[in-house]
Amino acid sequence: MLDKIDHLGIAVRDLEAAIARYTALVGSGPNHVEEVASQKVRVAMFAVGESRIELLEATAPDSPVAKFVEKRGEGLHHVCYRVPNLREALSRLAQEGMEVLPGAGDAGAGGSRVAFLHPKSVHGVLTELVEYPAG
Amino acid sequence: MLDKIDHLGIAVRDLEAAIARYTALVGSGPNHVEEVASQKVRVAMFAVGESRIELLEATAPDSPVAKFVEKRGEGLHHVCYRVPNLREALSRLAQEGMEVLPGAGDAGAGGSRVAFLHPKSVHGVLTELVEYPAG
Repeated sequence: MLDKIDHLGIAVRDLEAAIARYTALVGSGPNHVEEVASQKVRVAMFAVGESRIELLEATAPDSPVAKFVEKRGEGLHHVCYRVPNLREALSRLAQEGMEVLPGAGDAGAGGSRVAFLHPKSVHGVLTELVEYPAG
Repeated sequence: MLDKIDHLGIAVRDLEAAIARYTALVGSGPNHVEEVASQKVRVAMFAVGESRIELLEATAPDSPVAKFVEKRGEGLHHVCYRVPNLREALSRLAQEGMEVLPGAGDAGAGGSRVAFLHPKSVHGVLTELVEYPAG
């Protein structure tokens, strides 16, 4: 059902410092840096194989990422898997008793559709699913 | 420098329950379940694209995974990247000021060599690197 790890989200305090460090680790700079106002974050994306590393810095104290960092410190925040059909995936997972967070099926970047599973449904892991348009 | 995400490690309390849940999520069962006595864990590996999900359950109270779960609960524990040359990678990262944990270059499964970077060097992420033998 899962095509691949689409990206791994990492919460950081200082995006510029984290970009420098991950550029050294990955061996090349980010493909993409942008502010996502709706999520109150700035993000930098690095390509690693078929997946991406997404560094997330909060842009406001009430950003979910700000709350995460305040509570747990910097670190692994969520994982996103690519699925061929989001609606079908969510229907199957709901039947298995997993809780889908509000906003499922909302539009993401590049015409994608995304949904999040509650961490308590996936052994403590905030789990995102994404479907990209064909082609 | 990084070929791909080799695997994503997830700490769980109950491996059997987690295997059932991730079998539903991934859409197929684990490829591999084993006890790694040296790390005091039992692990289950699921294939997702070119990467794997590694579920980790502690087998002793003094296992690093037991301490992690006690402190932070279940969830994302570490990420492992595949590198073409571990010695070269560690040399470069040390020059960048990253701290490599003791035991770097130790033998892993299947003739691999592994090393860990200290989370404080990588914005809170316990980061493993692995080199597999050629072929």
